Amino acid sequence: MSLFFLKTDSKPTLRKLLSAAVIFTSLNVSAQNTNENFVQYAHPLIGTAKMGHTYPGATVPFGMVQLSPDTDTLPYGVNGKYNPDVYKFCAGYQYDSKTIVGFSHTHFSGTGHSDLGDFLIMPTTGKLQLNPGTEDKPDSGYRSAFSHKNEVAEPSYYKVKLDDHNITAELTASNRVGMHQYTFPKADDAHVILDLMAGLYQYDNKNVWTFVRVENDTLITGFRQTNGWARTRTVYFAMTFSKPFKNYGTKIDDNNVYKGFWKKFDQEHNFPEVAGRNLKMYFDFQTAENEKIKIKFAISPVSTQGALANMKAEIPHWDFDRVKQEGQALWNKEFNKVAVKTISEDDKVNFYTAMYHSFLGPTTYMDVDGSYKGLDMNIYKTQGSTNFTSFSLWDTYRTLHPLFNVLQPARNVDMIKSMMAHYDQSVHKMLPVWSHYANENWCMIGYHSVPVIADAVIKGNANFDVNKALDACVTTARNKYYDGLNYYMEKGYVPDDKNTSSVSKTLEYAYDDWCIAQMAKKLGRNDIYEEFTKRSGNYKNVYDASIGFMRPKLDDGSWRKNFDPLDTHGQGFIEGNSWNYSLYVPQAPAEMIELMGGKKRFTAHLDSLFSMNLPDKYFENTEDISREGIIGNYVHGNEPSHHVAYLYNWLDQPWKTEDKIRMILKAMYKSTVDGLGGNDDFGQMSAWYIFSSLGFYPVAPASDQYIIGSPAIQNAKINLENGKTFEVDVKDQSDKNVYVQKIELNGKVLTRNYITHSEIMDGGQIRFYMGAKPNKKRVSAQAIRK
Amino acid sequence: MSLFFLKTDSKPTLRKLLSAAVIFTSLNVSAQNTNENFVQYAHPLIGTAKMGHTYPGATVPFGMVQLSPDTDTLPYGVNGKYNPDVYKFCAGYQYDSKTIVGFSHTHFSGTGHSDLGDFLIMPTTGKLQLNPGTEDKPDSGYRSAFSHKNEVAEPSYYKVKLDDHNITAELTASNRVGMHQYTFPKADDAHVILDLMAGLYQYDNKNVWTFVRVENDTLITGFRQTNGWARTRTVYFAMTFSKPFKNYGTKIDDNNVYKGFWKKFDQEHNFPEVAGRNLKMYFDFQTAENEKIKIKFAISPVSTQGALANMKAEIPHWDFDRVKQEGQALWNKEFNKVAVKTISEDDKVNFYTAMYHSFLGPTTYMDVDGSYKGLDMNIYKTQGSTNFTSFSLWDTYRTLHPLFNVLQPARNVDMIKSMMAHYDQSVHKMLPVWSHYANENWCMIGYHSVPVIADAVIKGNANFDVNKALDACVTTARNKYYDGLNYYMEKGYVPDDKNTSSVSKTLEYAYDDWCIAQMAKKLGRNDIYEEFTKRSGNYKNVYDASIGFMRPKLDDGSWRKNFDPLDTHGQGFIEGNSWNYSLYVPQAPAEMIELMGGKKRFTAHLDSLFSMNLPDKYFENTEDISREGIIGNYVHGNEPSHHVAYLYNWLDQPWKTEDKIRMILKAMYKSTVDGLGGNDDFGQMSAWYIFSSLGFYPVAPASDQYIIGSPAIQNAKINLENGKTFEVDVKDQSDKNVYVQKIELNGKVLTRNYITHSEIMDGGQIRFYMGAKPNKKRVSAQAIRK
Repeated sequence: MSLFFLKTDSKPTLRKLLSAAVIFTSLNVSAQNTNENFVQYAHPLIGTAKMGHTYPGATVPFGMVQLSPDTDTLPYGVNGKYNPDVYKFCAGYQYDSKTIVGFSHTHFSGTGHSDLGDFLIMPTTGKLQLNPGTEDKPDSGYRSAFSHKNEVAEPSYYKVKLDDHNITAELTASNRVGMHQYTFPKADDAHVILDLMAGLYQYDNKNVWTFVRVENDTLITGFRQTNGWARTRTVYFAMTFSKPFKNYGTKIDDNNVYKGFWKKFDQEHNFPEVAGRNLKMYFDFQTAENEKIKIKFAISPVSTQGALANMKAEIPHWDFDRVKQEGQALWNKEFNKVAVKTISEDDKVNFYTAMYHSFLGPTTYMDVDGSYKGLDMNIYKTQGSTNFTSFSLWDTYRTLHPLFNVLQPARNVDMIKSMMAHYDQSVHKMLPVWSHYANENWCMIGYHSVPVIADAVIKGNANFDVNKALDACVTTARNKYYDGLNYYMEKGYVPDDKNTSSVSKTLEYAYDDWCIAQMAKKLGRNDIYEEFTKRSGNYKNVYDASIGFMRPKLDDGSWRKNFDPLDTHGQGFIEGNSWNYSLYVPQAPAEMIELMGGKKRFTAHLDSLFSMNLPDKYFENTEDISREGIIGNYVHGNEPSHHVAYLYNWLDQPWKTEDKIRMILKAMYKSTVDGLGGNDDFGQMSAWYIFSSLGFYPVAPASDQYIIGSPAIQNAKINLENGKTFEVDVKDQSDKNVYVQKIELNGKVLTRNYITHSEIMDGGQIRFYMGAKPNKKRVSAQAIRK
Repeated sequence: MSLFFLKTDSKPTLRKLLSAAVIFTSLNVSAQNTNENFVQYAHPLIGTAKMGHTYPGATVPFGMVQLSPDTDTLPYGVNGKYNPDVYKFCAGYQYDSKTIVGFSHTHFSGTGHSDLGDFLIMPTTGKLQLNPGTEDKPDSGYRSAFSHKNEVAEPSYYKVKLDDHNITAELTASNRVGMHQYTFPKADDAHVILDLMAGLYQYDNKNVWTFVRVENDTLITGFRQTNGWARTRTVYFAMTFSKPFKNYGTKIDDNNVYKGFWKKFDQEHNFPEVAGRNLKMYFDFQTAENEKIKIKFAISPVSTQGALANMKAEIPHWDFDRVKQEGQALWNKEFNKVAVKTISEDDKVNFYTAMYHSFLGPTTYMDVDGSYKGLDMNIYKTQGSTNFTSFSLWDTYRTLHPLFNVLQPARNVDMIKSMMAHYDQSVHKMLPVWSHYANENWCMIGYHSVPVIADAVIKGNANFDVNKALDACVTTARNKYYDGLNYYMEKGYVPDDKNTSSVSKTLEYAYDDWCIAQMAKKLGRNDIYEEFTKRSGNYKNVYDASIGFMRPKLDDGSWRKNFDPLDTHGQGFIEGNSWNYSLYVPQAPAEMIELMGGKKRFTAHLDSLFSMNLPDKYFENTEDISREGIIGNYVHGNEPSHHVAYLYNWLDQPWKTEDKIRMILKAMYKSTVDGLGGNDDFGQMSAWYIFSSLGFYPVAPASDQYIIGSPAIQNAKINLENGKTFEVDVKDQSDKNVYVQKIELNGKVLTRNYITHSEIMDGGQIRFYMGAKPNKKRVSAQAIRK
C-alpha cells in the first residue's frame, strides 16, 4: 500500500474540543460494579486524523452497524488502478476534511485497506442534488460543509450540523440498526438521499448489483452487492422513516444494464422497484421549523426479511434518546470491566478510548435469529453463539485476542467458533487470514487464526471442539498453494525469488507453527507436536549471521545480494524492515538472542533501534503510519515490533523495558484527534495500550505468561466475567516514576518477571511500587521464561 | 421484435429421421390405464426449425432442468442494442445449425423473447479451447460440427455425436438434475468445459456475477447471476463427475473485476475458488476408448446447498439409463391422460408432441424441500404445493391453462398458488404478467393472470383462497401506473397518443375485466361484479363503425388518422393487425357481431380473413411466425386469433368452424422439424391443437363452455385425475369427413353446440358422427351461448 502523510501541525487536545460536547450527553448509564460513568472518557474522534483510520460514528460494542459520517468517498481508481488518496478514507472520515458527504452504515475501525461504507444517507434542503460534489466545490453536490465546533462524538452517539442545509444530524445505533435523527428547518424542499453507489474504497464497477423496493410510503428494502476487498459481498437492508415522504425517485446511471420491458415504466419517479449497478434514491418531505425526521436503518447478511426482523426486534419504537442511552449503557458495562484510576485525565481518556477501540470488532455478523451468510454463500444459523466477522488477524492475534481472553472470554470463544465455521465453509480448508462479510480477502500474511486458537486453548478458554480446532490449524498450515507454504514445508523457508515478503512469512509461519505445537502438546498429540516444533525453528533459516540480520534467502540457498536492513519495500519484509523484523521470534526470545550473537550484541541492536535516526527515504517506504508512529527506527505504528520493547526482559535489563514502555505509551497514544501514530488496526494498537498501561503484556500468545512492563495507571480493578476481580495497584505512580521497584502478587513479593493467565483469572492483586530510578536487582536472571 | 425467416425448403418428415432413433429407446415404461407407449410418438425435434422455438433436449414434465444442446449463443448486442439474429436462438437450438456449442441446463420452450441457457457444458478432445468459436469456423473454438443422422431426441433423452471431438453425448434429466453421459475416444487430452459466460439472449454485461468452488476432485458448486429479461436472476448449481478430473482451471476474462489480494494465487490453474463476471472452467481427463464420463448437474433457485440436496434426493446413483427410463415413465403417465387413436401416425405424432410441448411449463421452481426465491429476493417455502415459474400468460391463459383445468387440475391449482405468492411478494401489488425465476419481466400486455384464476374458479378447480384471489385480480386491474390503466379507468380506453398497442390493451383489459366480473358474480361480490362488468364493455370504445374496425383512439376522443387495418406495427396493436384483433371480444361474441354490423357483415369479414392474400409488406411486420403461420390474413402463429375460427358458431354456420379447424390443424401442425408455424409459446399453440383435435375449444376462459369444432382423432379416452374417463368417439373419421353430422353426449343427441366443463369432468362419452358435407341443420340458432 502507498503512504499518506498529513502535514498538519499540532491539534488542540480532544478534551478541549469535547468539553462542550460532554454537556450534551447527560448520561444515565450506571456501571455494574461502580457508579462511575466511563463513557465520558471514551472519545471516538481520537484517531480520526492522519493515520489512525478510526471512525467517529455510532456503534455498540462489537455491533454490526457502524453508522458514521463519511467526509469523502473518493474513487479507488479506474480498472483496479490504485488511487493513493483513497487510503485516507479507509474509515470514511478524516478530521481535516471540510465537508461531510453523508452517513453510511458499515465501517472498519483502524484498517489500512478498506471496504464497506454501505448505504449512504444524506439529508438536504433546497434544490435536489444527487451527486455528492467535491470538497473544493461542496455546492456542486449534496455534500455539506461542517464545523468541528458543531460536532459531538461519543460512544453510540454522533451529532453534527450540516451547514449547507441547515440540518442538525444525530446518529445512534443498536447492534443491527442505525438510527438517524435529522432536525430540519422549515422547508418545502427537504430531501433524504439514499446513495447506493457511495462506498469506501469505491471504484469503477465496485457495485455488482443493487436492488431496491419502496414497500410503502415509509419503508424501503433492498440490497447492495459489491466486488471489492471482499470479492462477493452482499448486504441487505430495511429502512423506515418516522414520517411518510411526499414523493420519491431514483437516478439510474446505468448505461450497460438491460432495460427490457421495464422501459414501459417511468422508473425514475415514484416507481417502487428499481435495480441496477448505479442507483441513487431520494425522498421528498415538507418540514416545519425544527421538525425531526427519524430513520431506522437495519442491515442483514441474509435477506431483507432478516433486516426487517432485526429492526423490529432491536428498535420497535421511535425514541432516539432511548437507543442512545441503551447503547451507552452497553458501552459502560464493557468499560467497567477495567475500572481505572489514573494520574491524569488524559490517561483516563486514552485508556477508555483504547477500551472503546478494542471492542469495535470483530463485529456481529448474524441476524437476531442467528442466521448469517457463510463463505460458500449458503445461509447458516448459529446455535446459541454469536457469529462474528471482520477478522484482521495479522494485527489482532498479537494483543487484542489475548486481551479478549481476559476481558471478553465468552466473546472470544464465539469468535473462535466463527473462525471454525469459516474453516468448515472454506473450500481451501483454511482458517481465516483476513475475513469479512462471508469472504476471505487474503490480506497480509501468515495463518494467524492459529495463535488466536492456541492462546485460548493454552489459557483454558476453550469451550469449543479443541481437537477439531487443532486439526483445522494443522490443515491450514499444510496448504500447499498458500503463499509460499509449499517451499516453506520443503526447504524450511520461503525463497525470496519465489514469493514476496519471504522473510516475514518465514518468521510468522515459524511462530504460528510453535503455537500449533503448544496446542498439540496440551492435547497429547505428540506427532503434531514434534512436526510443528521442528517447523517452529525455521526462523533460523533466514538469519544471516554474517550481517546479524534476518535476510531474504533465495531458492538455491544463497542470500539475496541486494539487501538493505533499513528498508521495507521489496526487501523480503512487509510493514517492517529487517531491523525490526529480525527480532520477531516471540516463541523463543532466548534462542533468538543466542542466534543473533548473544545478549550483549542483541542489547546493542535493541538500544540502537530506539535511538537511531531513520532517514526520511526509509520512512517513506514504511506503511500505514505517520512520522509520529516511529521512535528512532522502532516502528510502533505497525505491528511486527509490538513485543520488541519487552525483549529487554530476556536481556536481564527489565528497566529498559519499563522505560521504553512508558515512553511508547506517552508518544504513541495521545488524547487528540491525531493521537494514534498508526492505523489502530481494529483495536490491536489499543489493546497494546491497555495491557501495557496495566503493567504486563502477552509477548507470545499461546504462552500463558504475561511479561512485566511498567504500569501507567494508578489502580485498575479488572472485573472478570467469572465474577472475580484482579486488581492492579500502583504505588508512587508518576510520569517520572517509570521504574518498577518491587512487585507483590497477592501480598507476596514477585521475583519472576511475569505473571500467568491463571493468576489473573483467579482474581487477586498485583501491586507495583514505582520509583524514578531502575531497581536493577528486582528480578533474577532466571526469572524470565526461556 | 424483429423477424427471422428461414429460407430452407421442405424438410424430411421427422418420423423418417427418427425411425432409427426409436430403436434405441427400448422403452420399459407402462402407462397407468393402457399398456401403450405413447412416448414414442412425442418428438422433441418438432418445432426446432424456423419459428417454433422449441428445444430438443431432455426434461421431465414441468421440470426445473431443461438440458438441451445450444447450436449458438449469439450476442444480444452491445449496450442493450438488439441483434436480430439472436432471436433464432431463443431456445438455444436451431435445426439448420451446423454446430453445437454445448449443452446448457435451462431453456424456455417456444418463447419469442428469451433468457436462461445457464451453465453450458461441452466435452472436447485435443487442444484445450475455451472460446466457443463461430459456426463458419468451428475449429476456432470448442464447438463441434454434428449431423442430424447421429442425433436422437426423445422425451427425457437426447443423443448426438460431436464430430470434431469424436464424442457421443447423451443427456437425460430428473426434475432438478441434468445428467450427461459422454462416451470418449481414447484420449490423453479429454476435457469438459463449463462455460459460465454462455447463455441465451446473451449480451455485454449480462453476467452480473458468477461464483465457483471446486469442492473436491469430482464436485463443483456455484452460482450465476444475470441481468436480462429477468432483471435480477440467480441460479445456483452443484455439478459432480463420475470420475475424478486430473487437473482443472479457469479462464478469467475480467478486466474490471477487483483482484485485490487474490493476486497472490494462480487462480487459473487448480485453484478451487473463483468469482467474477466472465468465467470459463475446464476439467481435464485421460480416457480409454469408449470410456463414459458422466456428470450430474443439479440446479437450485436458492443455494448451492439446495442444489446438492436436489442432486442427492433425485439422482443418488450413476445409472444413466435408469434416469432416462424414469423420466420417460413420467412422460408416459402424462401422455396417458389422453389415449388417442388417429387415422394416421402423423396425427398421433402431432398429438403427443403437442401433449409434450403443453407439459413443458410453467416449470418447477423450488428445491426438493419446497424452498424457492421470491420476487423480493427473499427465500420462501411452499407448504405441500409445488411452486412454479415461467408464466407466459399473454399466450397461455387462452388455451393452455384451460387445458390444465381438464388434464392437470392439481398442477393448475399449484400454478395459481404460485401466482398468488408472486402477488403477495410483488411491491407493485400485481399478479404476474410474464414472470420467471423470481422476476416479473413485464413482457406483452394485459393482466392475464386474471383469466387463469377466473377460469379455475368458474370451473370449480379452486382449491385456493378464492376471495383473496379475487382481491388480487381487482388490485392488479386498478394499478394506476401499469401500462395505460390510468387512462383506461378514466376514459374507458387506452389513448393511442399516450401508450403503445392501445387497441390491443383496451380489448384485452376489457376481456380480463369480464373475467373478474364472472368470478365476483360466483362469489357474490356484487359491487365488483358491477364495476368490472361495466369495464368489460370498454371494447366498444375502440370500435370505429365508420370503417368497421377496431381503431386507435386518441386522448381527445378522435380516431387516429394514419391507420391501416392490415398492418401490425405502430398501429395500436401487437402481434396482430386490426383485421384479426377486431374480432377479439371473446367475452361477448354476439354483442361484438352486432356492434360490427350484424351477422352478415361479420360473416363476410371472417370469410375474407381466411381467403384474402396478405401482401408481403404486411407479413414482414407480423411477429414471431413464419410465412406458414398465416392462412390468408388469419394469423394462427400468433395468439390473438386463436378463438377466431370458432366464431362461425355465433353466426349459425358451425360447418365453417368445422372446415377451418381441420384446415388449421393440418396446415399449422406438421410432424416435421419446421412443423410449427409460429412460436409454440410455452405450449399455447400445442394446447390449441389438443383441444381442437378433440373437437371442442374454450373460446372464453372463465366461461364453463367448450365450443364444438371438428375432432381430428378417431377416439380419445381422457383419463381424468378424479378417476373418471371422458371419451371422445368419432365415427366415420377421415381427412375428407371434416363435417360433424351429429353429436351424442352420453348417448343422447346434442343439439347445442357446446359442452360444459362439468360434462367432461363427470366422465362419460361424446360421440361425433362425421361426413364429407355440412349438416346445416345439426344445431339450432339458439344452441350457442350469447
